[in-house]
Amino acid sequence: MNSVIGFYQTKFGELWERSLTSLIKEAIFGALKESNLEIDQIDAIFFSNMMAGILENNLHFSSKISEIIGRNIPIFRIESACASGGVAFHLATKYLSDNCQKTVIILGAEKMTDYSPEEVTAALAAAASGEEQEAGLTFPGLYALMANFYLQKYRYTEENLAYVSYKNHYHASFNEKAHFKNQLTIEKILKSSYVAYPLKVFDCSPISDGAAALILTNDNKILKKSEFSVIVLASELATDTINLFKRKSLDEILSTKIAAELAFKKAKIERKQINVAEVHDCFSIAEILAMEDLGFWKKGRGGEIIKELTTMLGRSSLTVNPSGGLKASGHPVGATGVKQIGEIFLQLTNQAENRQVKGARFGLAHNVGGSGGTAVVTILGI
Amino acid sequence: MNSVIGFYQTKFGELWERSLTSLIKEAIFGALKESNLEIDQIDAIFFSNMMAGILENNLHFSSKISEIIGRNIPIFRIESACASGGVAFHLATKYLSDNCQKTVIILGAEKMTDYSPEEVTAALAAAASGEEQEAGLTFPGLYALMANFYLQKYRYTEENLAYVSYKNHYHASFNEKAHFKNQLTIEKILKSSYVAYPLKVFDCSPISDGAAALILTNDNKILKKSEFSVIVLASELATDTINLFKRKSLDEILSTKIAAELAFKKAKIERKQINVAEVHDCFSIAEILAMEDLGFWKKGRGGEIIKELTTMLGRSSLTVNPSGGLKASGHPVGATGVKQIGEIFLQLTNQAENRQVKGARFGLAHNVGGSGGTAVVTILGI
Repeated sequence: MNSVIGFYQTKFGELWERSLTSLIKEAIFGALKESNLEIDQIDAIFFSNMMAGILENNLHFSSKISEIIGRNIPIFRIESACASGGVAFHLATKYLSDNCQKTVIILGAEKMTDYSPEEVTAALAAAASGEEQEAGLTFPGLYALMANFYLQKYRYTEENLAYVSYKNHYHASFNEKAHFKNQLTIEKILKSSYVAYPLKVFDCSPISDGAAALILTNDNKILKKSEFSVIVLASELATDTINLFKRKSLDEILSTKIAAELAFKKAKIERKQINVAEVHDCFSIAEILAMEDLGFWKKGRGGEIIKELTTMLGRSSLTVNPSGGLKASGHPVGATGVKQIGEIFLQLTNQAENRQVKGARFGLAHNVGGSGGTAVVTILGI
Repeated sequence: MNSVIGFYQTKFGELWERSLTSLIKEAIFGALKESNLEIDQIDAIFFSNMMAGILENNLHFSSKISEIIGRNIPIFRIESACASGGVAFHLATKYLSDNCQKTVIILGAEKMTDYSPEEVTAALAAAASGEEQEAGLTFPGLYALMANFYLQKYRYTEENLAYVSYKNHYHASFNEKAHFKNQLTIEKILKSSYVAYPLKVFDCSPISDGAAALILTNDNKILKKSEFSVIVLASELATDTINLFKRKSLDEILSTKIAAELAFKKAKIERKQINVAEVHDCFSIAEILAMEDLGFWKKGRGGEIIKELTTMLGRSSLTVNPSGGLKASGHPVGATGVKQIGEIFLQLTNQAENRQVKGARFGLAHNVGGSGGTAVVTILGI
């Protein structure tokens, strides 16, 4: 049985004074401290990062991590665009399924703010297809296409989208590690500048720096000594063409639907048992699609349900994005999927302080690459 | 028990008319054909690629592969610089160690010749440390430092290095898929231009395009129907700091030594039982260090032994780099580690045609990232 026994997250935000290496170091040793482990108890590291190759001509980071920890253990760099963290976690669970008892770190980090917005936007576009890049599409543009399709098909307006950001900024105001801790009003969101119609500044997740690390084990001796632990009930992933023009539908993310079906089947629990979820809200429309594709809400009803704010902290039996989500907690790409699972770990072990979802027993993390070329659904329980 | 049951390699070389996507397609469907499988019998794909992010702003290739194969299965992109292929294979063996029966593809591909030598040299330098890049070091420079150290310490000359290239070009002349099929003379090698003293053009592996794919299974039904199969006796990897200035010694690659020790222990065979090996000869000095660090030759004696050409086809009980190695068969980075294991598969299943090592029963593949930040040793047997 694989269990998460520790988590550490650096501050997410514009961390001008920090390097990728220093963020990685803080996350690794922070997670070890949280779980009362030493580095020589770790058997392997799964490292999630998207853009260090493009932005700082830095590949082969596994060897840099070997230097940081002073050990020669296996270190793997996994890249699936914005889903890199979830995919790294998935592979780590498979690695532990081996018949031996091991403890590994899943580490995610990204350093994005040292570069111009144009450079970062172009680097992020590497998660789209060559055809889409050649057409001049960036990610706000791609998600705007989906948002337009959804709003028109189901007769919603930009106001419906605004409630996602409203809720997630509210949650982030209780999260010390969040990129943004300011609460927003629906009016302020609606008055913000357009990035790609109908998506405005406050519909979009920010460019952030940050790192996060999880400790995963199937070693019974280590598990027994752990102060906190949650069980990995399922970690499933699916892929799909990244090209929007090759999809059957623009109002669903097929990879999310497939991964969710597999994960709930594997975990043997029902949707209604999930008390807390971190879903991939890179743009406001993405959280609405995610809630529908994960099977929490009926297709097309999300625009209406989000306005009821039932997924806001303390309102119902399911809280969504208590960390503030990508939107307000920040989106240092490689760290995001790791942080999502970490937030569920904190919630299920009653360590989420002011943003604690009371009595949470089952949690879900949902991590998407690009516009849905990869999706990972992880279900944890206590 | 994990077994390799199929292998396909595209031509390696300057393939101006081919895209990364078309090389991937040829390799996937070529490997399926070789093993009489259909794409819907594949459970996951491990994709090895180093530079598509830097060179063509193309990350998240897992979704492109999903589009190519028309399926939504897990697809993982693994990057460890020039060791990406070996690391992808290693993770695939762990993935199969799960208690279910699965069949996966390990795919490696790289498209390098569409860019200027300066661009590719800079992209390759991403496998070095930031400190080394800032000092202006490129890979020929890094390996030249090691070559100088080795030649001085053990009192050899450039002529000793030349025998590596002589042998590997001879082998490649029998390999239809090789980048270079021309044989060289020691004189010609010694007269070639310096790239970074003491390394000359004919001491260096080329910039190549190409792809390769392996089929790995632990599904007994599929294994029983396979025409060819070899058993994975060990796949072990180790990491180390990439910074040469932080290493204890410049005449050994510590990660290779550790990975080899682990692999021979796991495989439960001795060095002398290996009949055929593909070792990481990105530069001539690298093959000599590899033979010593893998434990085939005593440290410091490699410069002398290589001149005896005992590892040339038909000369002794151990043939090294029958494919022509990286030097002559070519080095499309992401494909290299996959091709090495594929060559061993061909040799052990008696499919290596004119370059067949007669009666080979055990084979070893050795894949290195950068100047030794990662090393993977794979041992196969029949």
